[in-house]
Amino acid sequence: ASLDLPAQALESASHKADLLLTQTRNLSSRARGYNQRVISESDALAEEVVGVSRALKRDLQAARVALQSDDRWEEVVNQLERAQGVLHGNGPAGDLRRYAKTRQPYVLSLLLGPSSNVVALRKDQSQQMKVDYHRFRNRSAYTMFAFAAVLQWGLRRTQALSESRDGVSMAPVLLVGVQLFVCWMLFYYVASALRESVLKLNGSHIRPWWIHHHYWAAGTSCLLLSLPVDSPTFRKAINGFLWWPMLQSVVILTQNRYQRRRMYTRIALGKNSTMDVVAGDGVGAHGQLVFLYPLLFLLQGLQVYLGGVMIKHSYWAMLRTEGYLNLENRDDDLWGNRGFFLAGCLMIFMAW
Amino acid sequence: ASLDLPAQALESASHKADLLLTQTRNLSSRARGYNQRVISESDALAEEVVGVSRALKRDLQAARVALQSDDRWEEVVNQLERAQGVLHGNGPAGDLRRYAKTRQPYVLSLLLGPSSNVVALRKDQSQQMKVDYHRFRNRSAYTMFAFAAVLQWGLRRTQALSESRDGVSMAPVLLVGVQLFVCWMLFYYVASALRESVLKLNGSHIRPWWIHHHYWAAGTSCLLLSLPVDSPTFRKAINGFLWWPMLQSVVILTQNRYQRRRMYTRIALGKNSTMDVVAGDGVGAHGQLVFLYPLLFLLQGLQVYLGGVMIKHSYWAMLRTEGYLNLENRDDDLWGNRGFFLAGCLMIFMAW
Ligand SMILES: CC(C)(COP(=O)(O)OP(=O)(O)OC[C@H]1O[C@@H](n2cnc3c(N)ncnc32)[C@H](O)[C@@H]1OP(=O)(O)O)[C@@H](O)C(=O)NCCC(=O)NCCS
Ligand SMILES: CC(C)(COP(=O)(O)OP(=O)(O)OC[C@H]1O[C@@H](n2cnc3c(N)ncnc32)[C@H](O)[C@@H]1OP(=O)(O)O)[C@@H](O)C(=O)NCCC(=O)NCCS
Repeated sequence: ASLDLPAQALESASHKADLLLTQTRNLSSRARGYNQRVISESDALAEEVVGVSRALKRDLQAARVALQSDDRWEEVVNQLERAQGVLHGNGPAGDLRRYAKTRQPYVLSLLLGPSSNVVALRKDQSQQMKVDYHRFRNRSAYTMFAFAAVLQWGLRRTQALSESRDGVSMAPVLLVGVQLFVCWMLFYYVASALRESVLKLNGSHIRPWWIHHHYWAAGTSCLLLSLPVDSPTFRKAINGFLWWPMLQSVVILTQNRYQRRRMYTRIALGKNSTMDVVAGDGVGAHGQLVFLYPLLFLLQGLQVYLGGVMIKHSYWAMLRTEGYLNLENRDDDLWGNRGFFLAGCLMIFMAW
Repeated sequence: ASLDLPAQALESASHKADLLLTQTRNLSSRARGYNQRVISESDALAEEVVGVSRALKRDLQAARVALQSDDRWEEVVNQLERAQGVLHGNGPAGDLRRYAKTRQPYVLSLLLGPSSNVVALRKDQSQQMKVDYHRFRNRSAYTMFAFAAVLQWGLRRTQALSESRDGVSMAPVLLVGVQLFVCWMLFYYVASALRESVLKLNGSHIRPWWIHHHYWAAGTSCLLLSLPVDSPTFRKAINGFLWWPMLQSVVILTQNRYQRRRMYTRIALGKNSTMDVVAGDGVGAHGQLVFLYPLLFLLQGLQVYLGGVMIKHSYWAMLRTEGYLNLENRDDDLWGNRGFFLAGCLMIFMAW
């Protein structure tokens, strides 16, 4: 009997192993079938979406032209517009254009590769992405404010100390802090551009200029990181510059409150909400816009002002002929001044 | 009759508009059904894959323990290993673990958001990603070599000129070029880490240390970008540093040739190839490895050597007590030297 027990265990284990092998093989066949169905169905859907959207565009254009000379076309235009509404998201499946293979935003094909696919077919997933995006912006805004405020305070303290010429100024530590902050900003802008591109592919109506704005901001961060941090110009100019991320974080927080409220209203109204309801809910959140718009103008004003100050203090370095083709005496700090001249131009350009 | 024609056109357009509206509505319903089926099927697949893979792991462990005291368990272990082979890619659907929700690599959830989804269900798509990845590395290697070689040559010319003190040295232009090159390297390493993470999620057996390596390289690029480019140390040290990307690009090209050949062999063998065939084909490409390994050792050796040179020339700056808490005279160039000390440490660390 003591020999029987292991034999029994072996037999049952062998039986179980056979079963597991069969189960895994079946699973693989099922997965393959699933894959093939997904491929053929999504290809068919994509094709039909492209066909319908082309036909709609053409017919709608023609009908609108006809309407100008003949009122009876109004019903046709209405009907076609209703169809377009369904295509753009009023139907049960939401925005159908996601099924058509859209061109990948440049930043995604650059960083993730041209055949990467970030379109989520599941509505819950794509909605979660938007929630994540708002959370990311919220968290980042707090980080941005705290980081910039501490540096601002520290650098002011350093200046006061260096005027009275005593005490430990901590200037090198603060300047390294500034560079870490600039690295963080670079990360923030690149991540924003990437996440927004993903949202766009998933049907968000995010504006292209907003994504482009983040490319420019990332470029400006690279420029700031490349400047000689120990140069006198850098130390003078960075103090003013730090006001900008501080105000920007306040704007992001306010804007986020508005966008989030709007999003939750729309989610609550269900994805079958017509475009009219969307327009209506925008009016409902009007109270928030009253805060948002002046803040946005203030931010742009500050940006132009800071850019102007940078240019005013440093344009002389651009006019000098030395230092372009041969290296100059470092004491003139032509390098730092020219860097901030460029940064000032970029600031003003981005405010446009 | 001249009144009939427009009326007829109107009627046919109206009819067509109705048809289009119906078609779009049907399309939306179909898309919704498709979505729901994809969700429920992929959820079911994921659940079953997780269950099977847990059961296999547990049973295999137990069977291996039993095998140590009883030879008759060999057949059971074999059977279970066959099942695991199917799970890991020998079945018709390829690697089944892709269907289980895996944890997102950190860099992806940081830059794309935690709910972004880059897993391609289509085998052709994921294979295309790998082809794209190799193409990206190939293109980048040429860029890296050309960029670094031009800068290397230019900087050497500048040095020769500055010794003889005449002519236009172009040093500032070249130094800006170096910074652009460092920006490009930052992009290259971040893009590599992102693309490799995407490949990993799609079932590639890419090693985690390889991805981590690219994080560190990106960090080193940030450090180099942050150093004062107009400092004498920078100008001296950058010349040596540029040998590293030049050799690296040669290694990348050689490695790519090997990996590509291996990949095409495996694609040609079909996805049903067993693991044995894979091991066999590795032996087939042995000829290439003979070139690759010495090159890799050479690269690591160069990296350690360059790091050592950086450290040797700059460690004195770390020992000085000034400049840590208060800013120092710029002429000592403590900042630049300390930066290159850190860069040297990172170079040696990355060669490990
Ligand atoms: C991301 C953002 C741009 C969304 O923009 P938006 O135009 O408000 O987008 P909407 O909320 O109107 O969404 C439009 C549609 O896309 C859908 N959508 C939005 N995000 C989606 C996603 N990730 N996946 C799938 N669908 C999504 C919405 O559900 C809606 O579809 P519906 O018509 O089926 O309901 C916005 O939330 C945001 O934060 N923007 C920051 C930038 C900005 O606004 N800058 C301006 C001032 S500086
Ligand atoms: C990307 C890379 C790591 C692939 O690594 P690998 O271990 O050779 O991967 P394999 O080619 O063995 O692929 C293993 C499996 O993953 C699959 N796979 C690979 N890439 C895939 C993808 N993008 N999508 C789906 N499956 C993929 C393969 O088809 C194979 O599956 P199979 O068993 O069903 O055939 C390699 O091509 C590469 O270039 N690496 C660069 C880094 C490096 O090698 N560094 C070391 C020295 S410095």
